[in-house]
Amino acid sequence: MTPPTTTIDPSAVAASYRQQLRKDLAALGKPLKLVGFLSTDSAPSLTYANYTKVGCDDVGIGFDIRKVNKLELEGAVEAANADPGVHGIIVYYPIFTPDHDHYIKDLVDHRKDIEGLNSFWARKLYHNDRYVDEAKTKKAILPCTPLAVVKLLEAAGGMPLAGKTVAIFNRSEVVGRPLASMLANDGATVYSFDIDGPFLFKREGILLTNVTRRDALQEADIVITGVPSRDFPLVRADEIKAGAICVNFSTLKNFADDAKGKARVFVPRVGPMTVTMALRNTLRLFHNYAQT
Amino acid sequence: MTPPTTTIDPSAVAASYRQQLRKDLAALGKPLKLVGFLSTDSAPSLTYANYTKVGCDDVGIGFDIRKVNKLELEGAVEAANADPGVHGIIVYYPIFTPDHDHYIKDLVDHRKDIEGLNSFWARKLYHNDRYVDEAKTKKAILPCTPLAVVKLLEAAGGMPLAGKTVAIFNRSEVVGRPLASMLANDGATVYSFDIDGPFLFKREGILLTNVTRRDALQEADIVITGVPSRDFPLVRADEIKAGAICVNFSTLKNFADDAKGKARVFVPRVGPMTVTMALRNTLRLFHNYAQT
Repeated sequence: MTPPTTTIDPSAVAASYRQQLRKDLAALGKPLKLVGFLSTDSAPSLTYANYTKVGCDDVGIGFDIRKVNKLELEGAVEAANADPGVHGIIVYYPIFTPDHDHYIKDLVDHRKDIEGLNSFWARKLYHNDRYVDEAKTKKAILPCTPLAVVKLLEAAGGMPLAGKTVAIFNRSEVVGRPLASMLANDGATVYSFDIDGPFLFKREGILLTNVTRRDALQEADIVITGVPSRDFPLVRADEIKAGAICVNFSTLKNFADDAKGKARVFVPRVGPMTVTMALRNTLRLFHNYAQT
Repeated sequence: MTPPTTTIDPSAVAASYRQQLRKDLAALGKPLKLVGFLSTDSAPSLTYANYTKVGCDDVGIGFDIRKVNKLELEGAVEAANADPGVHGIIVYYPIFTPDHDHYIKDLVDHRKDIEGLNSFWARKLYHNDRYVDEAKTKKAILPCTPLAVVKLLEAAGGMPLAGKTVAIFNRSEVVGRPLASMLANDGATVYSFDIDGPFLFKREGILLTNVTRRDALQEADIVITGVPSRDFPLVRADEIKAGAICVNFSTLKNFADDAKGKARVFVPRVGPMTVTMALRNTLRLFHNYAQT
């Protein structure tokens, strides 16, 4: 008889990280200040802003939400970049078209970019360069959603990654590609699927592959989904290995109910850990860059 | 009786810029080298690469086209960034998804980015910061397609821009938004249309506006289109002012034939000037950054 599936509540995992963070922040002796820019009325952005507020209150970071007309956003971000009283910046997307939003992600000073969305951090990650200083005393930050997934895999008993096979459905620059790189950097064999077809991420590099969804899922010890489309055929029980760890970071359901039953551990969502990792990044950026 | 419409051949305008460039490059006494990365088989990319080759041969820049497996592109770009024998880099897009391609645009060292696609150059432009040094002796480069449009407007008798009204249909980060900013920096009132609705660019800043296509076109001294969709309703004669300057930089037709008849000057395409401006940027980047 197979053991029953464990469902991991990301809020519970987040709580333990927040407890540590609360201590570390209290030890600083000065309050950190995070600024959130809200230039959209979209419901997911408002929800994310609210989660940020709750998280900041919980760990003891000052949170200043600034509602800014979208045409004044760039100037407002630059003012926050230049303000030594601001330790972290978060912008709630989408605001403009994807390419214009991307411009803003790079406009946020990487030293205050708590979500790790700036190209500076992406380059660090893709080079597996884990420090920001030559002496290797200051650790680079990682983008908060992929980092949240990694920490949840840890909580799910998915470590170590060496020798494991992972299938990821999503290869966006915000989550899927950095996540595939992070897992491959740690020794996993990662099949990455998106509309461009499958890629194979290994520590040595990235390869084209002809692997099918069927074969990748049959092989995968860990299955991670983040497909924001109802057209995506849900991952079914008959496609996955018994005992797989399954993680969904999409806001939509990507696993069929029977797959949840067959998995050893199921992580239905990632959101609360994402916010927590962004708050953790705030502290790390302060240690790395703040004038004392 | 209205004077007949002049149609401007961008190749002819490009020829005069190339003549100057040939002289300036010969005066350097050393050949510059441009590397083009081709990681796609798409026909427009091959055409653009071929135009680059023809342009380089014409002005006397060495051109090295490198066909690279797309999964090896990032490493190849970084090697070219680090190679002091390479003075300019051009990558032919699209390769991956737009956000992954954007990552590569920012990966190209801005000191070799002859197309001006790196966020470094976008930030310069959006701040109307026209130099790269404090002493203001080294001019910033501008993204090559918007720059090509500006030079064609100059050839079309569209200068000075102060007091003029412009309507632009396209607000991409690659062409429409930088172009709107450049024209506004020079004193024009610019109505910018895209799926997000119209924005009004002025020297003082960007404003939301309720202007309709109809009203913007009736007011516009200059109409610029770059809509890569057959769903775009062609700009008609009855929509534009008699004597307007009309420029299309889309690969599709965006003006109805009768509009071309009503315009004072019509510029049907921009391509040959784009390549020429990229070559001109190569020389400017060499002056600004090369080790002598």
